[in-house]
Amino acid sequence: MAFTPSINRLIEQFARLPGIGEKTAARLAFFILRTDRSYAQALAEAIVMVKDGTRLCSVCFGFTEKDPCSICANPEREREAICVVEGPADLVAIERAGRFRGRYHVLHGTIAPLDGVGPEQLKIRPLVDSLRERHVSEVLVATNPTAQGEATALYLAKIIKPLGIRVTRIAHGIPMGGEVEYADSVTLGKAIDGRQEM
Amino acid sequence: MAFTPSINRLIEQFARLPGIGEKTAARLAFFILRTDRSYAQALAEAIVMVKDGTRLCSVCFGFTEKDPCSICANPEREREAICVVEGPADLVAIERAGRFRGRYHVLHGTIAPLDGVGPEQLKIRPLVDSLRERHVSEVLVATNPTAQGEATALYLAKIIKPLGIRVTRIAHGIPMGGEVEYADSVTLGKAIDGRQEM
Repeated sequence: MAFTPSINRLIEQFARLPGIGEKTAARLAFFILRTDRSYAQALAEAIVMVKDGTRLCSVCFGFTEKDPCSICANPEREREAICVVEGPADLVAIERAGRFRGRYHVLHGTIAPLDGVGPEQLKIRPLVDSLRERHVSEVLVATNPTAQGEATALYLAKIIKPLGIRVTRIAHGIPMGGEVEYADSVTLGKAIDGRQEM
Repeated sequence: MAFTPSINRLIEQFARLPGIGEKTAARLAFFILRTDRSYAQALAEAIVMVKDGTRLCSVCFGFTEKDPCSICANPEREREAICVVEGPADLVAIERAGRFRGRYHVLHGTIAPLDGVGPEQLKIRPLVDSLRERHVSEVLVATNPTAQGEATALYLAKIIKPLGIRVTRIAHGIPMGGEVEYADSVTLGKAIDGRQEM
């Protein structure tokens, strides 16, 4: 015998979540068993509700409950600048930083030829189409500084610049609070290349 | 702005699970958003079902769907030996090892005076009562080799031995596949104390 069928089923479902292995899934299942019923109910409802209540904004492709999203619908956000991010979590992180006053565009991934992801699998076509229609003067590319994020940034620059729009990239360098001594040499190289007048 | 209300709610609920921080909770929530609806539904149902379908066996206090559990109800399991474990997951691990043919008793914790857990908060009274009624000749204590698990084992030995029942403890030593060179000295000491004739 192993666990009961309903426990096994829950462990199986938990183990399908990213980064959750068999043992962690079992730990979570036993926590659900021990905890009060109202929490189990609330968690189950939140899981279903998020699927019902959330859709993609038809303008920026960020997650939203009503379309267009609150940022796209906000007349006070600058129309001239669009920040391109890989995923919705990046959008939230940049909003939290509070330094960007323009609008967003969520790609939902990066170009990754080895995984069979080309530009047509990402939300790149709608971006280019909307750039043509709107009065955008700058596209800030905020994809991650990984091989795929960089490749995606280069691809975007190549197709957007010919439209006469400035394409910028977020700065890479030593993170605030970080130490030069322990920075990897690629980051340090970027920090030197991107040095600014004081 | 942050995430949408329904995303925030799901992140909040995930973050209440043990070992799941804010960032992991957000990652899980975004996974739910991206994944197909049928999985979200299956996970939500499994969470609720486990609360509905699972109860404690009235004999051994392990998790079961019908009472008594399949082990307690199995006439082929030895009645003479009872293995005492801290939690239901320990029971499953020992069953998986396939070397114990007796029955079980789940304590649901260990004696931990600093956390206000005394013997009366654990399933120790029902154990002692059932030992008196049944023909048990050996109690194998398989609590964890931690300070609390050891204290619980000592406590059990103290109250069960006077009933004329043999109390044994699982062996501690170098795990199979482990290396003597890297074993901590407490484990190594236990391995030497517990050495056996070849």
